[in-house]
Amino acid sequence: MSPDQSRLTAVTARLLGEVRSSSPLVQNITNFVSMDVAANVLLAIGASPAMVHAPEETPEFVGFSRALVINIGTLSKQWVESMEVATTAAHAQGTPWVLDPVGAGATRFRDQTVQKLLRHRPAVIRGNASEIMAVARVAGLTTDAARPKGVDSSNTTSEAEELAILLARHCLCTVAATGAIDFVTDGQRSVRLSNGSPLMARVTALGCSLSAVVGAFLGVADDPFEAAVAAVGAYGVAGEIAAEKASGPGSYRVAFLDTLYAVGEADIQQRLKVL
Amino acid sequence: MSPDQSRLTAVTARLLGEVRSSSPLVQNITNFVSMDVAANVLLAIGASPAMVHAPEETPEFVGFSRALVINIGTLSKQWVESMEVATTAAHAQGTPWVLDPVGAGATRFRDQTVQKLLRHRPAVIRGNASEIMAVARVAGLTTDAARPKGVDSSNTTSEAEELAILLARHCLCTVAATGAIDFVTDGQRSVRLSNGSPLMARVTALGCSLSAVVGAFLGVADDPFEAAVAAVGAYGVAGEIAAEKASGPGSYRVAFLDTLYAVGEADIQQRLKVL
Amino acid sequence: MSPDQSRLTAVTARLLGEVRSSSPLVQNITNFVSMDVAANVLLAIGASPAMVHAPEETPEFVGFSRALVINIGTLSKQWVESMEVATTAAHAQGTPWVLDPVGAGATRFRDQTVQKLLRHRPAVIRGNASEIMAVARVAGLTTDAARPKGVDSSNTTSEAEELAILLARHCLCTVAATGAIDFVTDGQRSVRLSNGSPLMARVTALGCSLSAVVGAFLGVADDPFEAAVAAVGAYGVAGEIAAEKASGPGSYRVAFLDTLYAVGEADIQQRLKVL
Repeated sequence: MSPDQSRLTAVTARLLGEVRSSSPLVQNITNFVSMDVAANVLLAIGASPAMVHAPEETPEFVGFSRALVINIGTLSKQWVESMEVATTAAHAQGTPWVLDPVGAGATRFRDQTVQKLLRHRPAVIRGNASEIMAVARVAGLTTDAARPKGVDSSNTTSEAEELAILLARHCLCTVAATGAIDFVTDGQRSVRLSNGSPLMARVTALGCSLSAVVGAFLGVADDPFEAAVAAVGAYGVAGEIAAEKASGPGSYRVAFLDTLYAVGEADIQQRLKVL
Repeated sequence: MSPDQSRLTAVTARLLGEVRSSSPLVQNITNFVSMDVAANVLLAIGASPAMVHAPEETPEFVGFSRALVINIGTLSKQWVESMEVATTAAHAQGTPWVLDPVGAGATRFRDQTVQKLLRHRPAVIRGNASEIMAVARVAGLTTDAARPKGVDSSNTTSEAEELAILLARHCLCTVAATGAIDFVTDGQRSVRLSNGSPLMARVTALGCSLSAVVGAFLGVADDPFEAAVAAVGAYGVAGEIAAEKASGPGSYRVAFLDTLYAVGEADIQQRLKVL
Repeated sequence: MSPDQSRLTAVTARLLGEVRSSSPLVQNITNFVSMDVAANVLLAIGASPAMVHAPEETPEFVGFSRALVINIGTLSKQWVESMEVATTAAHAQGTPWVLDPVGAGATRFRDQTVQKLLRHRPAVIRGNASEIMAVARVAGLTTDAARPKGVDSSNTTSEAEELAILLARHCLCTVAATGAIDFVTDGQRSVRLSNGSPLMARVTALGCSLSAVVGAFLGVADDPFEAAVAAVGAYGVAGEIAAEKASGPGSYRVAFLDTLYAVGEADIQQRLKVL
């Protein structure tokens, strides 16, 4: 293990402990599919979830929250307004926020929404490779490398790395492109991680729930890059352990929540794969 | 086993394999209760779920989707508009769609909504016996047989058969009335199936999730009648196997998702009960 | 066991049996997070859930329902309108209703909503200690005892008892402040219960689901105080048994649903702790 790997492993273990001990309040404006599992994931890992989206109360609520998570999975005009109000308030009040650009690139409505939200300066953008590439394109960035293949595409993380770095520099934020391999970058520092399980893709909203966990770690960390690495790392380690106890996607979701609740520093030390 | 039973068993096994291998994208505009479990059911059986309802993006999204599923469980004026936009686009673009008329007959608002949606020509209507009878009544059809008993009613499938056939002929679609016995008809061909478990009625939204699975099978089949039979059949076989592993509705839901993920051609061959 | 403890234990067992045998239809206007688990909890305990919120159909639907449950977890202006229409209809038609004031005290929007809804005379208000104290404050009640500490607060039930009694007298309703110890009062009669498990707080929406169960018991009882005691008691007994079978919050939720389905009169007799 290189000094840097060793340091990030220690950071992950430490921040996991801080999420548990300080139980940060994380406000989520998320899609209808992930409401239940994202709240359960946050509770299991030790954070305090709140699903609050009304424009009438969001600016007030953002003030109590240690982080805000915006997920565009099930959009409507009303929810986009809520997201704008919330991210405006978060930016003004200094509450760090996470953007999960579900389905970016699939429709113009999604891309316009991403474009609006980027103005309010997310601390972290977390998506799969195709979504990260689509957000970069929305931000006017491009490379000669592979373009998104459409909504059904499964670009690999490695295809997204170059655009992820450009996007992080452009938005002055951390970008996490997650999948079989996870890539986290703030435009200067970059790291790959490789824990997790293929079963994670067979349970709905585990990507969305990871974005919520990034919010929890942001709420206890000073450095968004470290928060994103630690959240992705701890989540992947739990995902790997859970797979050893599951016989399909139903039992996997159950085992994953149990494991998030139990995963400890020793598990991180033994299993975290920082490449 | 008659030649026809044998043929439908082979069709069910084949279409299940095609859902797994081609992973059809199924767009759902469904109720808030079923969002999570329907997405998990689709993932478990090998399909690719998308919950997309905004009128701003639906016509574009329907173009990518292999099937659309409309479920009226938790209605509002805004969602009815979304459903109208989506089904209009589906009809125009030739994307087959499924209507799940949850609670039809319970309120005038539901019946009016069903009436609007029927105009856009569903390929399959899937509901319980009381709902199918209510949809038939909305379509102006009637028989001398039992009338719906109200929202708490539990008409049996056999009471709905005659109206289901009339409805299929009237709408030029396939109708599936599901329950302890399932009845599927396109107005010419009719079949009864009898797999499943009483525990399915003690887990919320497993009927809604079946409609989503009908969408997945529609996305890989040429014949909506065969798609509906195969979806209902494979679902029931998984439901029957799962009951052998469960000790209540909580563990049943878990076992059911694990079983949908694992159920194979041999299970269909051994267990499918086409009456 | 005192005569009163013994009587309430018998009442709890009897009402649980009546929920199972008459399967009351319970209409819920609840938050997006709890939709799935609350419906599953109601089905597991033997009731019949309906999630119906459109103003267009609610007055009609309230007429079929044995109880209505209003939960303000994920508010919006539109949903507040739905809640007003529904509670107005419930009050007019004599359908008893439960208020679950999630997050009361956290924002002005929540407090204004609670204020509006109180006018329509809930039969039972169920919340955690901080929420019950916040509702009392909204109703203009105050004591010298501890004030709410904000959204992250965890006031204990004992801190809320005095205000709960005042609130019950003021609203002429039953108030249940639940937590490690549960306190139920109608302003004249008061009782403490102490079943349950700390794991209940690590699974999202189990408080919301308890409010739904209070609705189910209201639907079969003549006395809202007895309904609330029995619902809180049976729920806590199931929660305690489930904890013996779980290894974390994921398996706890599964075991809890299985236990609610199976919990019987003998469990109530042996385990119910009325203090």
